[in-house]
This record gives sequence, structure tokens and C-alpha cells, in this order.
Amino acid sequence: MSTTPRKIAFIGLGIMGSPMAANLVKAGHTVTGYNRSRPAIDKLVAAGGKGAGSVAEAVADAEVVITMVPADPQVEEVILGEGGVLENVQPGTLVIDMSSITPQTSIKVATAAKEKGVRTLDAPVSGGEAGAIEAVLSIMVGGAADDFADAKPVLDAMGTTVIHVGPTGAGQTVKAANQLIVAVNIQVVAEAVVFLENAGVDLPAALDVLAGGLAGSTVLNRKKANMVNREFAPGFRIDLHHKDMGIVTAAARAVEAPLPIGSLAAQLVASARANGDGPLDHSALLRGVERLAGREVN
Amino acid sequence: MSTTPRKIAFIGLGIMGSPMAANLVKAGHTVTGYNRSRPAIDKLVAAGGKGAGSVAEAVADAEVVITMVPADPQVEEVILGEGGVLENVQPGTLVIDMSSITPQTSIKVATAAKEKGVRTLDAPVSGGEAGAIEAVLSIMVGGAADDFADAKPVLDAMGTTVIHVGPTGAGQTVKAANQLIVAVNIQVVAEAVVFLENAGVDLPAALDVLAGGLAGSTVLNRKKANMVNREFAPGFRIDLHHKDMGIVTAAARAVEAPLPIGSLAAQLVASARANGDGPLDHSALLRGVERLAGREVN
Amino acid sequence: MSTTPRKIAFIGLGIMGSPMAANLVKAGHTVTGYNRSRPAIDKLVAAGGKGAGSVAEAVADAEVVITMVPADPQVEEVILGEGGVLENVQPGTLVIDMSSITPQTSIKVATAAKEKGVRTLDAPVSGGEAGAIEAVLSIMVGGAADDFADAKPVLDAMGTTVIHVGPTGAGQTVKAANQLIVAVNIQVVAEAVVFLENAGVDLPAALDVLAGGLAGSTVLNRKKANMVNREFAPGFRIDLHHKDMGIVTAAARAVEAPLPIGSLAAQLVASARANGDGPLDHSALLRGVERLAGREVN
Amino acid sequence: MSTTPRKIAFIGLGIMGSPMAANLVKAGHTVTGYNRSRPAIDKLVAAGGKGAGSVAEAVADAEVVITMVPADPQVEEVILGEGGVLENVQPGTLVIDMSSITPQTSIKVATAAKEKGVRTLDAPVSGGEAGAIEAVLSIMVGGAADDFADAKPVLDAMGTTVIHVGPTGAGQTVKAANQLIVAVNIQVVAEAVVFLENAGVDLPAALDVLAGGLAGSTVLNRKKANMVNREFAPGFRIDLHHKDMGIVTAAARAVEAPLPIGSLAAQLVASARANGDGPLDHSALLRGVERLAGREVN
Repeated sequence: MSTTPRKIAFIGLGIMGSPMAANLVKAGHTVTGYNRSRPAIDKLVAAGGKGAGSVAEAVADAEVVITMVPADPQVEEVILGEGGVLENVQPGTLVIDMSSITPQTSIKVATAAKEKGVRTLDAPVSGGEAGAIEAVLSIMVGGAADDFADAKPVLDAMGTTVIHVGPTGAGQTVKAANQLIVAVNIQVVAEAVVFLENAGVDLPAALDVLAGGLAGSTVLNRKKANMVNREFAPGFRIDLHHKDMGIVTAAARAVEAPLPIGSLAAQLVASARANGDGPLDHSALLRGVERLAGREVN
Repeated sequence: MSTTPRKIAFIGLGIMGSPMAANLVKAGHTVTGYNRSRPAIDKLVAAGGKGAGSVAEAVADAEVVITMVPADPQVEEVILGEGGVLENVQPGTLVIDMSSITPQTSIKVATAAKEKGVRTLDAPVSGGEAGAIEAVLSIMVGGAADDFADAKPVLDAMGTTVIHVGPTGAGQTVKAANQLIVAVNIQVVAEAVVFLENAGVDLPAALDVLAGGLAGSTVLNRKKANMVNREFAPGFRIDLHHKDMGIVTAAARAVEAPLPIGSLAAQLVASARANGDGPLDHSALLRGVERLAGREVN
Repeated sequence: MSTTPRKIAFIGLGIMGSPMAANLVKAGHTVTGYNRSRPAIDKLVAAGGKGAGSVAEAVADAEVVITMVPADPQVEEVILGEGGVLENVQPGTLVIDMSSITPQTSIKVATAAKEKGVRTLDAPVSGGEAGAIEAVLSIMVGGAADDFADAKPVLDAMGTTVIHVGPTGAGQTVKAANQLIVAVNIQVVAEAVVFLENAGVDLPAALDVLAGGLAGSTVLNRKKANMVNREFAPGFRIDLHHKDMGIVTAAARAVEAPLPIGSLAAQLVASARANGDGPLDHSALLRGVERLAGREVN
Repeated sequence: MSTTPRKIAFIGLGIMGSPMAANLVKAGHTVTGYNRSRPAIDKLVAAGGKGAGSVAEAVADAEVVITMVPADPQVEEVILGEGGVLENVQPGTLVIDMSSITPQTSIKVATAAKEKGVRTLDAPVSGGEAGAIEAVLSIMVGGAADDFADAKPVLDAMGTTVIHVGPTGAGQTVKAANQLIVAVNIQVVAEAVVFLENAGVDLPAALDVLAGGLAGSTVLNRKKANMVNREFAPGFRIDLHHKDMGIVTAAARAVEAPLPIGSLAAQLVASARANGDGPLDHSALLRGVERLAGREVN
């Protein structure tokens, strides 16, 4: 890929951010990384990037700033807070927040940035750690069309599906919708599994037929084995999905969109977590259905 | 396909049964059809089959009897009733009921048949009219392994995925699970659509991203356009899905399988029907979400 | 109470039927009882009634027949079956079925009875064993106004609130609505209890305030102590409430009435039963909420 | 009532605050009121109170400060904001917030107050405008026992049920639980009403029986006529109940309490509002059930 090399600051070198930043280096960009803990920075340096001792240092002469942090408070702190991105970048800089947060916070950040002449995009991802490492993430981008066009070559280094879905916040909205659908699709497969087992059906055979018809889904394909074998090593943790269900229910409420099924799914995800299943893969929603069915689960 | 030609009676030549029987003729079988209304029989005769004036006549010297009728009462009438299949077939005949009914009725039929030395399979299908015409149905079969082996070459003439999923009733159970998953997958996509629209997102772009990730599903692929364009010509009618949700909720209750999400979906399907959407494609569950959102729907 | 003494046959002398029949004796009626097991008949005889060896014998010269049996199949057997009520009563007899069953079965019974010139009422009760013993039941009656007027003095011997609520089946419909409301009222109090406890609130004080305001209910008054003390001796068993939730969800489906909350409550009642709580009082729905909250329940 | 007269500042003289302040005057207290709009202040002065031109002026020499404002942001502004209560009261002052807000905000306020040596109670009410006028409110109080004892004589001038339910935030938690139960109790009665009507039952007779048994509730008693007559003048507006459902779902999520039924009720309240029913009494949840049932509602 022969894209113009850019000076990129990357804030947040966690499980996702670390391989994403490395892929930017591979694509020829100059990447200066900052992370709260030092080892993550060293890893980026080893991969050919640069390290910074603070957000301020990382963004000092960046053309593009990417943030990839856990949740709304960290986004606010890193971008809007004291010593944060907005205090330290030049007007015209493009700030791409790739964290999964509420659309409301994305809008808040964009508004504050605009006052300083700083451009923003919200660009959350799906595809997990594997997708980040292999640079095959789906990236859903909200913001101005011009800014999206500017960011596209940079984002292409991290994902294969990079789509502009609307104005500021739209990326987060689509990510929220993604998590909504995934949770519900898992939950209904889990309900089907317990139903099929209680009825004495050959489960693997049944799931194969189901996967081949209108009931088929990526969830069914990817999580079928987890459910059949009760193997719930993550994958994507219920703890994180619980956070995301909080985002989608709040965001839907804010725009007066009804989620009769979705809000019930959010309760069941929360219940899974309350039962100690937070660290497991989200396919472990099956365990919640089993509990409702009176089965021993352990 | 060089399978042994069989003498097959086919009872119920409706939208599904008619092309299924025609495909059996094409595969080289001798097919004698019976239907309540005459034109359907004439159509089979035109396709190379034979017509019968009664169930008794149709099954008189059949080796295999296939029934494809609307619901439980018709299955009971046609197989168990006066002048029905059991009264008129020889011991050893294989009766394959391909209707979508409750597992309980399949078991009742099988029990009555066994007393007369008649073998049965429940073998409901998915794939709709198009799948029936093109002989690419999924067929989920419950019953004895021997009987499945005997039926397999016959069923292969009508479908591409023909799978033995367990004992008597298991075919119906899997079909019920299929309809459960489909209804919920449609419903959650509908909730997502209204959420995305209310939030001002570019819907087609968003659905494309969603379809490409873990939220992807056959429902999303096939029904996306229906939802974006509000085009709800069936397809599979809500009226029929309502019948099926009745089957799955009853069957799950009978085996003590919890359906927290599924039972709510059943209510929403019923509500769609109560609002006059029964004749529309099941993707019209979107209209119910729009009503909950306070939109004019017409 | 000076009502005309009647010749009454009472079929079904269980936990409810036994004290109800005894109260009819006390009111001056001639009561001939029949029950499958003998000791219940002996008890009625000891209370001043008569015993019969069969349904036929019990109803032979009865003016009024009362049936009080567990569920739909028993009602059909006792009234419509061989050797049952309809085969053995005179035209003009009034048959009052006080069992809790589906409105559909009440209509089926009434239709069959009418063909023989026999009059029927459906008259299910609420108030439990205590209400039966103290003759303070609520009795909701469906059927013709004339027949209600005829039955009223008889029913008054067993209850304090005896109300004609509509045509055949209406009594059962109201009973079903009663059970629907009760289940949901218990469930929401249970959700509130876990919420209050998790939040560190003084539960008894809180429930006292709640009972005094718009959140107040008979459920809260009567079941508060059960919940605070986790004392779940019945009372009204979850097993029976599960049966009743089956009736109300089926009956609502039949008349196209949506039960979004009600159908979810039915699932939670079923889940309680699947978890072994069937023999407990229905206030034990609290245990299901506790399980969802990840608490040890035992 | 011979209680020690206190110097009370009353901030927020709306529909509820105005009669509450007047009742404090009647009880012999010196009440200085402040409200954003002047006429409310004049009304208090006419009732024997004093008026202030600012929060600062109102609280200047108050021993007790009462706040009664619409929602969390107003509480934060009035108590924590610039020119607000905390900036202007003496250490030792008792601040009683009687607004209905999240427990989280109550805790935030209490924490900030404590740093200045100011004592706080959260003391939301139920009983509506009528209860406020007649001084028969239920008041659920969270905070320290000593502070409750200090406040009790003051609160007794406004309500008849004044109960200490736990530490800071507990008052709000109980209020939230109250609104949860009320919403669900209304919703299930609404579901029962449509079911009874669709089944052809005599609705007023049926509701009378239901009210007399275990299904009885304050909701049924008070809202029965609204539902039968479709008279939905508030009363308590759906708009406000929607706000409260937001509080209870958030608060329950924060303490990991599952609300399977409650969260669905929250969706239905939100849907009522999205359908334009926000200004109606919350018994108008019936209209939502009617819409689900396919009825014309207008």
C-alpha cells in the first residue's frame, strides 16, 4: 500500500491499540506512542515506532492523533483533560478516537475540539484482538466526509472494512448497534441450545442444519463449538459486552428508539456478570439460560 | 441421481407440496398425489405424476407416504382420522410428515402408527417456496436411524441439506428452534434499524458494516433490503411465523426450556399480526418497532 | 342465611373442594360428594353430607352439580367423559364448574351440555384454602344471567364476593387475569427487594413506605414478610401458578391480547419451577431474582 | 403540632414545592423561599413566608435548607454550583433534598457537603400534588440517624409517613423502587384490561372482583376508572415516570440488581412517550397495550 506517510500519535497501547499501532508502523507511518505503563511503549519502539513520556510529548508535532482507551472517562481525560490532546495539538490536527464509547461523549469531544480548530472522527472497531493483529478490523467512522477522506488511508492500515456511516457519533452508534445485535444473536442461540438439549435432539447435527438456513449467523458459525463444548475462554469478555450494553441502552434511550428485546438482553448480560461470568467469552450467555433452566452450572 | 424408484403417495399439494412432489417425479419416483382441491392434482399429473380421488386411493399401494399440510389438526386428520393414512396403508409403510407442527403431535402420530406396524419420520423443511422449487430445502429429520436411511434418497430429491437430528419429534424441535432464532434475529435487526435511523446514521452503509462482522447473519443479508426499502411482500408471512412461535413456545414449555427473549419475540410477532401485518413478510417486524417508536406506519 | 335448600352433587373433594362442600352443608343444602379417594368422602359424611361411589351416583338426582378438579383434562373427563356428569344428569340441571381451567374448555363443556339441555356456569375462585374454609372466596362467574341468578344463593355459601362477569368462559378469563396480575405484582416486588438490598437500604422500613403509597398492593401486604424472612411455605404453590400462567398466555393468544410483561413473568415462573421451587409459595419468585443477581440460593 | 420553630430556606417552589413550603409556614416555621420565577415567591409570601432574590439570600441564616427541583442537573446546580447552597450556608446546616434524583447524585452532594461540615439528607416524596397540598406525603429519607431525628419534626409538617430507610441515597433508592413497582403494576393491569375486553368480559365487574383479591392494589383502586373510561388527565405524567424509569434502571445497574420485568416496563413507558402520551397520566400505559393489540388509539 503506497500511502503518504503521516506523523501519527497513538495514545493507548493496550490489547487492541498495541497491534494497531504496529500495523501503522508497518504501513510506513511515523508513529509515536504513549501509554500509562511503560512496557507497552517499549514494545512499540521495538516494532519501529517512537515512545513518548506524556500525551503532550506524543502529540506535539502529530498530524493525526489516534486514541484507543477503555471507556468514556478515559477518552474525556486523554482528549479534554489537563495535559491532554486538545491542550497540546496544533489547530487543524485530526484526532481519531477509536475507543468504544457513547455517541454523546464523541459529540462532546468533537464540540470541544471544534472550538480549537481541531478536527475529530469517532472510529470504533470490531473484530477483536485477532482482527487488530491481522489488520482486518471493521472500522465504522462518524464525522465530516472530508475528514473521513483524510483518515481513510491511515485507517486502511488497520482494517479491511472502513466505512463512513454518518456525522459525529455515528461510528459509535453503529458500534453500539453491532454489540446489540451480537448479544441478542448469542442469547437466542443459547435459548435454542437448551431447548434442543432438553428435547433430546442431537445438538451438533441440529446446529449444523440451523447454520445452513435462515437462522444462520456469524455468531452461530463462530460460537457453535464454544456452546457445544462449554468452552468459554475469551474471545470477547462478558464484562466488556456489559459495558457495551450500557452504551447501547443509554444511546437508544437518548434518541427514543425502543429496544424491547435489546433491553432484556442487557439484563441477561448483566446477570451473567453478576453470576461471575464476566471474564468468560460472551457465548457464556448460555450459562445464564442453563441457570434459568435449573441446571447446575459451574 | 440414480436412486431406486419408489412408489410414493404425496398428500397436500400446496405452495410447498406441489413443487416438492414435482421434484420427486423428476427424480424418477412414481408419485400419486392427493389434495383437497382438484387443480393441484391436475398440476401434478401434468408434471408426470398420478392423481387420486382420496387419501385412501393415494396411499393404497404406496411404499412411502409423504404428508405436507398446514398444521397439527390437518396432520391428525389426514394420518389418524377416518379414511386417513393409517387406516389405508400396509404395515411396514414409511410415513414421512413434512408439515411444520408440534413435536407432541409428531410423537402422537408415531405412537399410533407403531401400533399398526407403520414407520414414521417427522421431516419439516426450511427454505420456503423458492427452496421447494429448486429442490434445495433444508430437511431436519426425526425418527429411527434405519427409517432415516431408507428415506434419505427420497428426501435428497427435494433438498440439499438432509440431516437426521434425533428421535421422533426431533425434526419438529429443530424446525421450531429455527423459527425461534429467525424471529429474534429479525426483531433485533429491526430494533437496530430504528435506533440507527433515529440517531441519524447512514442506514445502508451501517447495515453493510454490520453484515460484515460478528453481527452478520443470513437474516441481515437477505432482509436488509426489505428493511431499508420498506418492501414487505412475502417471502415468509408473519401469519405463518405466528403459528410457528406458538409451536416453539409450547414445545419449550413442555420440556422446561426457558425462552426469555424468545417468548417476548413471540408477543411481538403476535402484535404485528394483530396490527394487520399478518400477510406481510416477517421482516415487517420492523413496523412493530416503528410503532413502538411513535412513527406513522402504513 | 335463609336460602332454599338444594340437592347438590359435589365432585372433587380436595384441599379446596372439601371445605367448600362442608360450607354448603352448613348452609342447609343436601350435599352428595364424590372423590377419587375415599377418605375425602368420609370427611364430608362426618360433616353432615352424603357420600357416593361414583360420579353417576353422586349426580343421580342432583339439581345442582359442582365440580372442583385440578385441570382441564379432569374437567373434560368428569363432565364429558364416559360415566361422567352429562351422561347421568337430568335436562335442566345446573352444572357449576369451579375448577381453574382455560376459557376454551369451559366453552367446550358448555356447548356439549347445551346439546343435552344441561345448563352450565364457569365459576373459578380465588382466596386459597383459608378463603375456602372461612367461606370468604371471591367467585367469578361466567354464563347466562338466569343461571347466575339461580346459582347465586348456592355460591354465597362459599364466598363473599360472587360476581357475574360475562358469558360462558368469562369466569375463567377473569381468574386467568387475576393470576396474571398476581404473578407480575410478586415479580416486581421481588425485583424491588433485591434492588433495595443491593443498595444497602433498610428493607422492612422500605417495604412499609412502599406499601403505604401508590406502590401498595395486596401482594405487598401479604407477601412482604415471606420475602423479608425468606419463608416460602405455601400459600399458593409455584407449581399451580405455573399451570395458571399457561392458561393465561394461551387464552390471551387466542383473543389476540398482547402480554409483553405477562409472558415474561410466565417464563420466570416456569424457571422457578425448573429450579425446584415448584412446591414453594409463589412469593418465592424472589429466589429467581436472587439467582439472576448471582446470589447463593438454597 | 408543637414543634420547635426553625429557620428554613425552601428552594424550588413548583407544583410540589409551593404547597410543601406553605405547610411549613402553617406549622409555625420561618420559611424563606426562592424560585427562578417570581410569582411562586409572591405566593409563598402571601401564605405567610418570606421571599428571597437568590439562593444565597434565601439560605443566608437558615438552619435547614430544603431543595425541591426537577432533576439531577438542577440539584447539582442549586446545591453544588456557583452561588449555590454549599457556598452560602454555615457549617452544621442541614440540607434536605426532596427532589427525585439518582442515588448517585445524592451521594455526590452529600460528599461535597461533608467537606464543608454541612449535613444532608435525601428525602424524596410520593403522593403527588394532592398529597403535597394536604400534607399527607410519604417521605423516604436517607442519611444519618441523627440528622433524620433532627429533620423529622420539619418533615412531619409535610407528610404523614416519614421513614428513615438507610444511609445517604437510600431515600432515592426507595423512591426509585416505588416508581418501578407502580409502572409495572399499571402495565400489568393494562395488559389484563385488553385481555378481558378482547375476551368479551364485563370489564367493570371484572376489575371489581380483581381489586378484592390477591390481585388488588392501590394502582387498581385508583386507576381503574381512568382505564375503564379512557380518561387520562394527569395525575402523574408519563413524561415524569419516564424520567424515573431512567433513574431506577441506572441505579439498579449500578448495584447489579436485575430488573427483567422492570427494564421491559421502562421500554414501554418510553414507547408511550415516543407515541405522544408523555403529558397523559401514567395509567395511559393502557394505550400502549392497545396499540400492540392493533386497536385505533387517539
